[in-house]
Amino acid sequence: MSHAHPELALPKPLEPGALRIVPLGGLGEVGRNMAVFEYDGRLLIVDCGVLFPEDHQPGVDLILPDFSYLDGRLDDIEAIVLTHGHEDHIGAVPYLLRLRGDIPLVGSRLTLAFLDAKLREHRLTPHPVQVSEGASIELGPFALEFVAVNHSIPDALAVAVTTGAGTVLHTGDFKMDQLPLDGRITDLREFARLGERGVDLFMVDSTNAEVPGFTTSEREIGPVLDQVFGNATGRLVVASFSSHVHRVQQVLDAAWAHRRRVALVGRSMVRNMTIAAELGYLTVPDGVLIDVKKVDSLPPDEVVLMCTGSQGEPMAALSRIANRDHRVSVGPGDTVVLASSLIPGNENAVFRVINGLMRLGAQVIHQGNARVHVSGHASAGELLYAYNIVRPRNVMPVHGEVRHLVANGALAVKTGVDPDRVVLAEDGVVVDLVDGRARIAGAVPCGYVYVDGSSVGEITDAELKDRRILAEEGFISVFAVVDSSSGAVVAGPQVHARGLAESDAVLAEIIPEVTRALAEAAAGGVADTHQLQQVMRRVVGRWASNRLRRRPMIIPVVVES
Amino acid sequence: MSHAHPELALPKPLEPGALRIVPLGGLGEVGRNMAVFEYDGRLLIVDCGVLFPEDHQPGVDLILPDFSYLDGRLDDIEAIVLTHGHEDHIGAVPYLLRLRGDIPLVGSRLTLAFLDAKLREHRLTPHPVQVSEGASIELGPFALEFVAVNHSIPDALAVAVTTGAGTVLHTGDFKMDQLPLDGRITDLREFARLGERGVDLFMVDSTNAEVPGFTTSEREIGPVLDQVFGNATGRLVVASFSSHVHRVQQVLDAAWAHRRRVALVGRSMVRNMTIAAELGYLTVPDGVLIDVKKVDSLPPDEVVLMCTGSQGEPMAALSRIANRDHRVSVGPGDTVVLASSLIPGNENAVFRVINGLMRLGAQVIHQGNARVHVSGHASAGELLYAYNIVRPRNVMPVHGEVRHLVANGALAVKTGVDPDRVVLAEDGVVVDLVDGRARIAGAVPCGYVYVDGSSVGEITDAELKDRRILAEEGFISVFAVVDSSSGAVVAGPQVHARGLAESDAVLAEIIPEVTRALAEAAAGGVADTHQLQQVMRRVVGRWASNRLRRRPMIIPVVVES
Repeated sequence: MSHAHPELALPKPLEPGALRIVPLGGLGEVGRNMAVFEYDGRLLIVDCGVLFPEDHQPGVDLILPDFSYLDGRLDDIEAIVLTHGHEDHIGAVPYLLRLRGDIPLVGSRLTLAFLDAKLREHRLTPHPVQVSEGASIELGPFALEFVAVNHSIPDALAVAVTTGAGTVLHTGDFKMDQLPLDGRITDLREFARLGERGVDLFMVDSTNAEVPGFTTSEREIGPVLDQVFGNATGRLVVASFSSHVHRVQQVLDAAWAHRRRVALVGRSMVRNMTIAAELGYLTVPDGVLIDVKKVDSLPPDEVVLMCTGSQGEPMAALSRIANRDHRVSVGPGDTVVLASSLIPGNENAVFRVINGLMRLGAQVIHQGNARVHVSGHASAGELLYAYNIVRPRNVMPVHGEVRHLVANGALAVKTGVDPDRVVLAEDGVVVDLVDGRARIAGAVPCGYVYVDGSSVGEITDAELKDRRILAEEGFISVFAVVDSSSGAVVAGPQVHARGLAESDAVLAEIIPEVTRALAEAAAGGVADTHQLQQVMRRVVGRWASNRLRRRPMIIPVVVES
Repeated sequence: MSHAHPELALPKPLEPGALRIVPLGGLGEVGRNMAVFEYDGRLLIVDCGVLFPEDHQPGVDLILPDFSYLDGRLDDIEAIVLTHGHEDHIGAVPYLLRLRGDIPLVGSRLTLAFLDAKLREHRLTPHPVQVSEGASIELGPFALEFVAVNHSIPDALAVAVTTGAGTVLHTGDFKMDQLPLDGRITDLREFARLGERGVDLFMVDSTNAEVPGFTTSEREIGPVLDQVFGNATGRLVVASFSSHVHRVQQVLDAAWAHRRRVALVGRSMVRNMTIAAELGYLTVPDGVLIDVKKVDSLPPDEVVLMCTGSQGEPMAALSRIANRDHRVSVGPGDTVVLASSLIPGNENAVFRVINGLMRLGAQVIHQGNARVHVSGHASAGELLYAYNIVRPRNVMPVHGEVRHLVANGALAVKTGVDPDRVVLAEDGVVVDLVDGRARIAGAVPCGYVYVDGSSVGEITDAELKDRRILAEEGFISVFAVVDSSSGAVVAGPQVHARGLAESDAVLAEIIPEVTRALAEAAAGGVADTHQLQQVMRRVVGRWASNRLRRRPMIIPVVVES
């Protein structure tokens, strides 16, 4: 398997008849999935999602793919194909549409409906092209065929992209539940037909490539929920992802069977389930839904709260219930079900919520003690089926951290794919399909683009480093007013600090030291404010290091008067 | 089971003949274990450990138990009993000894040796009292008996504390490996004898109470390591905890069997293994150890690096190797083994290291794909044995988050303990043993004590909140020099910001707004610097909220000239 090296150069111009694929996100991370296909001067984008920040990226709301590769080429884009409606596949579309608003958006009915709701929040008007499994469309030099795949959201699609360079089959996110709730299986007959015709490059979801065996069927959760609901004597709270239509369906069904009403809680839960119900993806038994405001008027054993916050998000309903900061309370005899995965990195937050709920006396059921969640991604066993059915000429694992991509590549090799034809690329690494052979052709700049409040791409890693220093060490600002001619201090120095432990009395120790240093500097003829600021920085820095054993950020300011 | 409520009042004075137990740490969290026993006016402390901070506690080095309960009572302390040598049991001893240096320290040989090394770093001279299993000692009104227990560090002890109020058996940390490497099993015969005599209160390690079944024997790791070492053709790097003597022993043995030399890497690894070898707890085959500086002079297949950093700590050897920032390099053909648990909260850091190593081409073996780690704590199955053998009159789960304590209490109830006699307490909750009955008697103040640089207990939750705001929002400082009589601005305003995305040009927008507001205030007769600062804070805050959609910390400073 060929690994991309950080020393890669910019790629050469694309040869005629060759296809270029530039992953701008999702390769080397779980999120912000986006791939740019180029053929004959035209571009096709598959997915355009967001990545959620980690703790070392404080204050960041979202992370986008780096669109700078598209600079000057926006008019070459034929369309954005959206494989399904999850945030990590559609969440960055509004930001790309800000650069060019009329890019056609190709996707299934539910995917486009979820996207439409998002775009309306951004006050953007989409140009949708609705497709479904079995559809074939042509966009410039790209012939697209869509294949049904099964995932943790309905109406997901794989897409086959055929150009003069051959056929690329991109799975999107998928698993191969053989008995899905909606009967819509990943269409392996179509995978087989495409394989028979010839798949030159197979781009395959890597998320669960490290997980041995097969992902359990969503259907197996129903009986577990039924048992939990049957045993519950008090209030029931179920938390899950707000896009997981089938999971919510199972909760509605269990509630109905056990004569409970369901209140949907959380803005995204209400919005998505309203869409899903309107389009017929969610079947809502008549009268099962109630408004959350009515929950307290019903006996505890007649209600279910279906809410967000399964990842311990502090502002979501579940955290607030655990902190007794929500209109709905839970206590002894009540049951809370986390019908969701525990996304790595969220452990502390989730366990904080679980501990809070248990402290209140509630019983908490989660994937650690009951089968109340199954993954939406194909495990290693399923991936082997996919490789054996498609028999691709080249393989490019997508969607995952390095460990996932490597594991997925190893599975391809096990099924007989030539290791030299398994391309392990990370974001920005350019892969060309030339003469039926996929090869790394170079790399393009591809950084993290941070959304923070109203700013997009303005926060850099330097600011994030500043923020981490501020968080870990705090800051000391010190300023003085000096006479513009003599450099003598006429007011101050004053010291302010935040994030430090020290009292004002301790900080006051700095003042005589700074005063002395400024006097010495002035006596030595230094009157330039910049130089005086450097003097203050040195004195305060040395003091903090010696006296506090800390290295706070130091902001020295000298004003001339 | 009785749960402590946050509304608990201070306890009444202790009745004559009653025993009081005040947990100052470790109940409601994994770490900083410490319990204070009181009888007849005298105190006995069991363990005195540290807790490691989470991401929402930036800049904090360590978290200590809150010693304020001991204010004015330091001279009543008979001794500190240390059940074993892990940081979460001994790490806070130096901080308690700063309050009273001559408190006797009771523990086993290895525990005291690890503690001694720590105290020497703090320039403290211990007053040790060495004990071993089978020993009985009396300290004031407390009669202590020590019982061998098996854990992930050698020489761990449980302690039975007998007073006029009855016998309390405290397990410390333990598991019940029936075939431990050193043959030193948890002494269930002694547990049975104590149970026969009567255990009035059983304080039991809860860490793995949620884990069904039995903790696998440490012995099963040996064959796995042997296979890994046998298959490895390049360099081998093994990371684990620096106190895990038996794990290191297995690595030394596997290395020796496969004709590899071992370099110990990391200050704590070298220090602890030197102590363990000197005292005979670690058997080092002659010539197996080499200095890390010699690693590069040997062929890759003749060395093993045994290092720290298995939790992804950024400054530890393993992270630096993954970042190509260490004298030792790894590449294709090399194998890295993480022979350690993945402590919740460290997932992102650990996976970052694993991804980095895999990107370099190394194979990475960890508990997710091979049995290279077993826990040091008893699982639910073992705890049932313990309850059935001891048959305690009252139970108090210790060492764990709420979820662990609740699960452990439920196990006690399953073995027949009266639910009313299972006391679920968190830190600071006072439990009295009176007339053979354990009951919650109130609560004492018990906060987090943060160590940060040279400061102990000076950082408060308010400063941590400031730090989180600084991290997430950054800050804007704005200052002006005003005429002391008129309030007119004579220099400035100047604006400085950190952690924001905005350019100086954007920030400069603030200046005219501030100037105008100050002029209006001065015209309105406001000349007090404090009031002028409030004016600046309001103006800048509103600007940041409207213009940036952010809420940075704002530091307004007005100096009179």
